[in-house]
Amino acid sequence: MSREGFFTIISIGNELLTGRTLNTNSQWLCKRITDLGGSVHRIVCIGDHVQTIVETLREEMDRAPSVMVTTGGLGPTFDDMTLEAVARTLGVELQLHPDAEGMVRGRYQMIFEGKEFKMTAERLKMATIPKGARPLENPVGTAPGVLIETGAVAIVCLPGVPNEMMAIFERAVEPFIKSRVGVLRFAELNLEVFDVMESSLAPVIKETVSKIPQVYVKSHPRGSEQGQSRIVLNLSCRSAEGDEAKTLLHKSAAYLTDRITALGGRTNVAQ
Amino acid sequence: MSREGFFTIISIGNELLTGRTLNTNSQWLCKRITDLGGSVHRIVCIGDHVQTIVETLREEMDRAPSVMVTTGGLGPTFDDMTLEAVARTLGVELQLHPDAEGMVRGRYQMIFEGKEFKMTAERLKMATIPKGARPLENPVGTAPGVLIETGAVAIVCLPGVPNEMMAIFERAVEPFIKSRVGVLRFAELNLEVFDVMESSLAPVIKETVSKIPQVYVKSHPRGSEQGQSRIVLNLSCRSAEGDEAKTLLHKSAAYLTDRITALGGRTNVAQ
Repeated sequence: MSREGFFTIISIGNELLTGRTLNTNSQWLCKRITDLGGSVHRIVCIGDHVQTIVETLREEMDRAPSVMVTTGGLGPTFDDMTLEAVARTLGVELQLHPDAEGMVRGRYQMIFEGKEFKMTAERLKMATIPKGARPLENPVGTAPGVLIETGAVAIVCLPGVPNEMMAIFERAVEPFIKSRVGVLRFAELNLEVFDVMESSLAPVIKETVSKIPQVYVKSHPRGSEQGQSRIVLNLSCRSAEGDEAKTLLHKSAAYLTDRITALGGRTNVAQ
Repeated sequence: MSREGFFTIISIGNELLTGRTLNTNSQWLCKRITDLGGSVHRIVCIGDHVQTIVETLREEMDRAPSVMVTTGGLGPTFDDMTLEAVARTLGVELQLHPDAEGMVRGRYQMIFEGKEFKMTAERLKMATIPKGARPLENPVGTAPGVLIETGAVAIVCLPGVPNEMMAIFERAVEPFIKSRVGVLRFAELNLEVFDVMESSLAPVIKETVSKIPQVYVKSHPRGSEQGQSRIVLNLSCRSAEGDEAKTLLHKSAAYLTDRITALGGRTNVAQ
């Protein structure tokens, strides 16, 4: 049994581990998945090493998320190994997929503007995907994305180049997630708190969460400005009805404001 | 036996999983650790849930890195649970550490500018650390960092607020890593390639890496500009001697340039 609506993101690329590249992909995916009512439970970032990718895919599948999204490792070079790792993990063959080949060929036709070109081994590699997988058209680059529904877990493989990752996600993955996740909706509200320190606020937050447990409250200290301490409380809530989530958020914010005022502080609903 | 020089980063915070916050901390840490000659092998990002943190710490310890760095979850609120999780993972008690208490008290003395204040339970919590751990002074915030050397693995816990994380790292963690990692040095070089497509470049890279295996080559397609395709090849190398690494990088770049020129492309050493 998978945990419906639970997502895992696996970011693949040595450049993420040396710090050369900032992992904006996983933040973008987290935002989108959260907005769709899904819940990301883990992000794991690993290098371009096939055995490491296989082990990580296995471990993360064992946690039974409903969807695993990988980014990176779909290109034509020898160190693009995500699909080989997925095939090994699932115990299936890699095979040239006719639709994927058509997609890759179509992209090179555009790049070569009608001139002759060869479908080299490296180009065919991008159309060689695990048996049973479906290629997802890449409208802005050469390597298609890949979707594999296997038992309870769906695996979505996206390129690491941000605009390609985003284009495939919006075109093909978002509709898939909507059908998978259903109607849960995420809502949030930020409450700025002035002139109360985080350590004084801590018992107030604890009390609020125990009164209105559907709303999660997290404090983010923002230092002090012109002698005023400033903390942003992020209130968030998931519910089947959008209005219900909003009502709960406002109830929680009102409760917090009462208590904070009593401590001599003040609040402001921020964005 | 730990794998000397291997690092794992564990980023803790729900705000990273909803996409509210971009994980710049892990990129900054990867850069610094790489510059010091260390090698980050995994970044795992999880939410503020004590059982999840404990399980993740255990799993990552089993991979035997030489250092694990956590960020987040050191503050005074109920959902700051990193130290509780570390204590549970190691099977030790949490206890009020006199030096840590002195650090926290000193910070509040500055904040209250000599006025009277209470060391509330929430403030004392930040000085309550796993038995055997050493507090690391936080020069810009209230929660000290923590260092625990346990068997072969060292665990470093840093706050999630970026400037606090960086200040503690620079003051206390960097000297510790230098003593731990020794003299391995990391060097890199970027080679811009024009007018050769990534799929044509792939066999050239493979050949170069087989000739000069000490140098890792990764290609980053950068799209095309004014009809010219542009790919950045990142060449990187670790060696005991800084000059040796540089010599190998230049040897690899020269080899690549020869082959790329033969394909009708051109190269440029970039930064």
